[in-house]
Amino acid sequence: MQVFRFLTAGESHGKCLTAIIEGIPAGFEINPAFINEELKRRQTGYGRGGRMKIESDTIEITSGVRFGKTLGSPVTLVIQNKDFENWQKIMSINPDDYTDEKSFTKCRPGHADYAGSIKYNHKDLRNVLERSSARKTAIEVAVGAVAKQIIAQVCDIKCSSKILQIGNAKDNFETEIDIAREEGDTLGGKFEIMFENLPVGLGSYVHWDRMLDGKIAQAVMSVPAIKSVSIGNHHAYKMRGSEFHDEMFLEDGKIIRKTNNAGGIEGGMSNGENIIITAVMKPIPTLRKTLNTVDLKTMTEAQSHFERSDVCAVEACTVVAEARIACILADEVLMKFVKDSFEK
Amino acid sequence: MQVFRFLTAGESHGKCLTAIIEGIPAGFEINPAFINEELKRRQTGYGRGGRMKIESDTIEITSGVRFGKTLGSPVTLVIQNKDFENWQKIMSINPDDYTDEKSFTKCRPGHADYAGSIKYNHKDLRNVLERSSARKTAIEVAVGAVAKQIIAQVCDIKCSSKILQIGNAKDNFETEIDIAREEGDTLGGKFEIMFENLPVGLGSYVHWDRMLDGKIAQAVMSVPAIKSVSIGNHHAYKMRGSEFHDEMFLEDGKIIRKTNNAGGIEGGMSNGENIIITAVMKPIPTLRKTLNTVDLKTMTEAQSHFERSDVCAVEACTVVAEARIACILADEVLMKFVKDSFEK
Amino acid sequence: MQVFRFLTAGESHGKCLTAIIEGIPAGFEINPAFINEELKRRQTGYGRGGRMKIESDTIEITSGVRFGKTLGSPVTLVIQNKDFENWQKIMSINPDDYTDEKSFTKCRPGHADYAGSIKYNHKDLRNVLERSSARKTAIEVAVGAVAKQIIAQVCDIKCSSKILQIGNAKDNFETEIDIAREEGDTLGGKFEIMFENLPVGLGSYVHWDRMLDGKIAQAVMSVPAIKSVSIGNHHAYKMRGSEFHDEMFLEDGKIIRKTNNAGGIEGGMSNGENIIITAVMKPIPTLRKTLNTVDLKTMTEAQSHFERSDVCAVEACTVVAEARIACILADEVLMKFVKDSFEK
Amino acid sequence: MQVFRFLTAGESHGKCLTAIIEGIPAGFEINPAFINEELKRRQTGYGRGGRMKIESDTIEITSGVRFGKTLGSPVTLVIQNKDFENWQKIMSINPDDYTDEKSFTKCRPGHADYAGSIKYNHKDLRNVLERSSARKTAIEVAVGAVAKQIIAQVCDIKCSSKILQIGNAKDNFETEIDIAREEGDTLGGKFEIMFENLPVGLGSYVHWDRMLDGKIAQAVMSVPAIKSVSIGNHHAYKMRGSEFHDEMFLEDGKIIRKTNNAGGIEGGMSNGENIIITAVMKPIPTLRKTLNTVDLKTMTEAQSHFERSDVCAVEACTVVAEARIACILADEVLMKFVKDSFEK
Repeated sequence: MQVFRFLTAGESHGKCLTAIIEGIPAGFEINPAFINEELKRRQTGYGRGGRMKIESDTIEITSGVRFGKTLGSPVTLVIQNKDFENWQKIMSINPDDYTDEKSFTKCRPGHADYAGSIKYNHKDLRNVLERSSARKTAIEVAVGAVAKQIIAQVCDIKCSSKILQIGNAKDNFETEIDIAREEGDTLGGKFEIMFENLPVGLGSYVHWDRMLDGKIAQAVMSVPAIKSVSIGNHHAYKMRGSEFHDEMFLEDGKIIRKTNNAGGIEGGMSNGENIIITAVMKPIPTLRKTLNTVDLKTMTEAQSHFERSDVCAVEACTVVAEARIACILADEVLMKFVKDSFEK
Repeated sequence: MQVFRFLTAGESHGKCLTAIIEGIPAGFEINPAFINEELKRRQTGYGRGGRMKIESDTIEITSGVRFGKTLGSPVTLVIQNKDFENWQKIMSINPDDYTDEKSFTKCRPGHADYAGSIKYNHKDLRNVLERSSARKTAIEVAVGAVAKQIIAQVCDIKCSSKILQIGNAKDNFETEIDIAREEGDTLGGKFEIMFENLPVGLGSYVHWDRMLDGKIAQAVMSVPAIKSVSIGNHHAYKMRGSEFHDEMFLEDGKIIRKTNNAGGIEGGMSNGENIIITAVMKPIPTLRKTLNTVDLKTMTEAQSHFERSDVCAVEACTVVAEARIACILADEVLMKFVKDSFEK
Repeated sequence: MQVFRFLTAGESHGKCLTAIIEGIPAGFEINPAFINEELKRRQTGYGRGGRMKIESDTIEITSGVRFGKTLGSPVTLVIQNKDFENWQKIMSINPDDYTDEKSFTKCRPGHADYAGSIKYNHKDLRNVLERSSARKTAIEVAVGAVAKQIIAQVCDIKCSSKILQIGNAKDNFETEIDIAREEGDTLGGKFEIMFENLPVGLGSYVHWDRMLDGKIAQAVMSVPAIKSVSIGNHHAYKMRGSEFHDEMFLEDGKIIRKTNNAGGIEGGMSNGENIIITAVMKPIPTLRKTLNTVDLKTMTEAQSHFERSDVCAVEACTVVAEARIACILADEVLMKFVKDSFEK
Repeated sequence: MQVFRFLTAGESHGKCLTAIIEGIPAGFEINPAFINEELKRRQTGYGRGGRMKIESDTIEITSGVRFGKTLGSPVTLVIQNKDFENWQKIMSINPDDYTDEKSFTKCRPGHADYAGSIKYNHKDLRNVLERSSARKTAIEVAVGAVAKQIIAQVCDIKCSSKILQIGNAKDNFETEIDIAREEGDTLGGKFEIMFENLPVGLGSYVHWDRMLDGKIAQAVMSVPAIKSVSIGNHHAYKMRGSEFHDEMFLEDGKIIRKTNNAGGIEGGMSNGENIIITAVMKPIPTLRKTLNTVDLKTMTEAQSHFERSDVCAVEACTVVAEARIACILADEVLMKFVKDSFEK
């Protein structure tokens, strides 16, 4: 991203999650209440486990905003981990506090445990889990909530989403989830995200790394547990050119389209129609019903470690994906419309 | 990308396509014959139109390689456009050569024409077409062919792919294509790409923009006409956690898996299994059977412009997608294993 | 920077300063006591004003380190502004707290005030001052202190510096400073930084943005108030080639040099000799003796605004410059020697 | 750089030098004649050696420009090496052409030879020389000449420069050069570059890597042989704050300054005054009078290798530094004023 750049940090049971966003022009209104609403959306959703009940995430802005408006300087967002006092010693930065309490060495298939332990030479898989946990998406939702406020102020871009399927259910999701929970199992699903009021010409065809569809695909696919990203009509592969492409007409002197199979992106650019993205989430890899795995310490076969988790997090995942896409759009919108400061 | 970075340039009917790759360590063997084979793979494939017959792309390396090995300095790749002499005047950089021959103003739905003309303020859609054309993927294939040679030398990574579906056909693709051609229509399809011999731990879970799956998704989705990218088992959304996740076992003291639903990526990292990617290509947007559209000059309804094109380019698209992924992997492999120079 | 990347944030009188460093491999020992020592070095030094006495900066690490070692995940550094309680309302993010207390509109020549107010459309110059203040260098020193620990662990690189001149004094700096203070004036100076034990081959000649001297120059010149950066012998411009270039000899079979006019960098790379950088700091632009300026609100001539400040901050500036260079070297050293994890 | 990004490539005796610039908006007039004039300025200048006479560099634009204007797509610049036919075999990419003709193993002090051979594991120092040669600055001058045309069209920014000193001479440079030539020696010098008509607010104080002075310092210091970069008044270190800082006054309702000690940059931003940069070039490290060095193959003491060279290249170096700074300014100007297309 060229203008709206950010780094996030924080362990699942560490003191806090932090993000710094650099590049926001001066003059944007940032409403913490909206960020908190988005954080809440991520935490609720049928199928979430116990932790969500303990912690109601709240944003704190410690830089870059004064009297409700961005200063042009970097914006820092912080979410305290409310459970931290119980983990203070386990997550201590101090070598003298060393403890193997909460250590584990049995890989959880589907998680970062195995590859992470090799890559970073971690003997204790807690050192992998703490950052690979989906907990880190909370701060990404906060960053996205800032991005959403920016794109709303510049172009009135709006975002919405819906769940298309959970496991085998296309409706009555709660029943599907209840059954899975009872069986100690987990579920994935499919969802759709829509952005409305897009200006024409975000992204570009001139170089592969400027194509909007590619940027969105990265943003969505890097959400933990996402395995598939599609733009526009799912049936693209089996439709003929004459059916698929969105013809253009004139209505009252304005160009209109009657279809949106392209999902709002042609030639790597927004074409003014709604952007429509579908994504698939795999089932959550931490489940009560254990999986066969290997204990990396003893190098013996074992049953996977279970840490309190959810049965289904498709709703949360949708919120995270929205946030990620919003960051991409904020970057593009800032590049295209706003220089150093913004005024309504 | 952190090490293997590149820019590409060139218009469809310009003098040549060019790429500069910066960041390749010294000592890698680069074989131009292999690059030419890859260029040929892109050009053949049932369903391609006339241009492919005119031009057999050939690579020229004008920097960065000496006596068969990389020097550590930037590598320049050039593909001459063999048809250029016929376009010299039309594509001239000289203002005195101005001509509106080959100009057009009727948007082709599905192409960059409409959004591109607005974004770049181009009255003549030829100015959009020339760079938004899939022609530019030839040089991307060349860059990918360099990347493939690097990852083969460091880790013996191999790449293969297969077409899963073209239009409604899951086999007998030629018949499907013949029918579409006869009807003046075009086809898309679905294909699968596999990379073998991946080391564990490419990519990372620590920050969203370092996740390998996200990077691959961007690479693939930014190939012109790709509308969907998936990693691993397509049925992820409807499988239970206990079915989907790839359990781990020991065999002769080594960790093995019996399934690969994850498609080789867990927690944003390669897990040592084959990486398996599926992508969907939309039907080609330039078709003989014209589409309703708008003439941007006269602002009247019109039939879309037709420039010589293909009926189906799924094979070519597969080759391009392979190339793009290879670049991502080369970057990761260089970061992980090679410093400044490489020796077998 | 390719591996060691970071963002910093925080206003001078805001709640805290924050930095996130992304890209540090796992396994490095991070000692907060060393960071605090560096923070202290920045705060002391003859010539500093009152604020330094109020605040003794202390680092807090809120992510990325566990039991004394880096996890591979992003490291968050926080320095609380101890004076914040007095500024809470003035620096509030809440629009309802709006106050013009501490607002000012008279540009301070030599500061960011004038250009910043135009660029970001700030009517209240406090909105510029708060981020353009040298206060932000405290967190940069903390980031540099992490970088210094990394380069010490990998290559045993050491850093030292000395002040060459303050105002017109080449020694007895305290007298020079006392005189300036009495006169309500401020001083700049010249200092030298040396890094020892550099490996050969950091940086590269292959592309302009990889040259080590260029990167160091940016790092140093972007320290507030620095106006000049030199590498090696100051007299380069008037020396002959035969005098200047550092001849090479053999001693006990090892290549040695008897001079280091190049200052440790040839062809954009470290050559194994000590890296020697000289920099010039301008006098501090906030001074008791006011300057002629313009009030941007009334557009009348005025005397510049005075906010509590220092007489001379050359020592502090030296510490900041060291920190900045250390970040560059950490990036290069990590690229060259460490992959994903480090073990002594 | 955020918008105007480029890669350059090419060996000193390779087929050609190439650059790709990505990010230029559509609609800018690019005049190749101006680029050629700049190339010529780099080649002339008293003190240049024989090669300059052989080769009169000429630019070829092979993409991104049509009928005199940029298309928005990447611009490719090529300079053929006219001497290439004599080097074809020596610089061949084909392993079968291997020859050790023109190989050398005696390090030239002051060059990249020593560090380059270690970094890239090159036994033949020709493999280092070919890219570390100042020849590559020709294409950088071409890129800068494009940048200069952009900043002239957007803001009417103008550039000029003057040599301040060559060796010990402050005038009568030709005599100084003649003497050095006779003695088989080389000279460096000092020069000043000025950019006029700068808008207020290029660069930023909000983050260290956005400060304009830092970016300029990198650009200049990464020009081969530059050892020092200064902005504004050289005497900054010995002036008092009350003398140094450029007071502001009103004249006919407009803010004016009577001095420009800051050299046009305050708080990391252009302040509307002329940007004034001074740089020091070391003497050329290839000299007829040989230097003591080491033969890396035999590990014996030796006399350095001499390849045809110049006595003094301060004028050329000035042109390169101008070009580099112009690229930085083009990036900033595009970010600030132009979106996707430009129209006068």
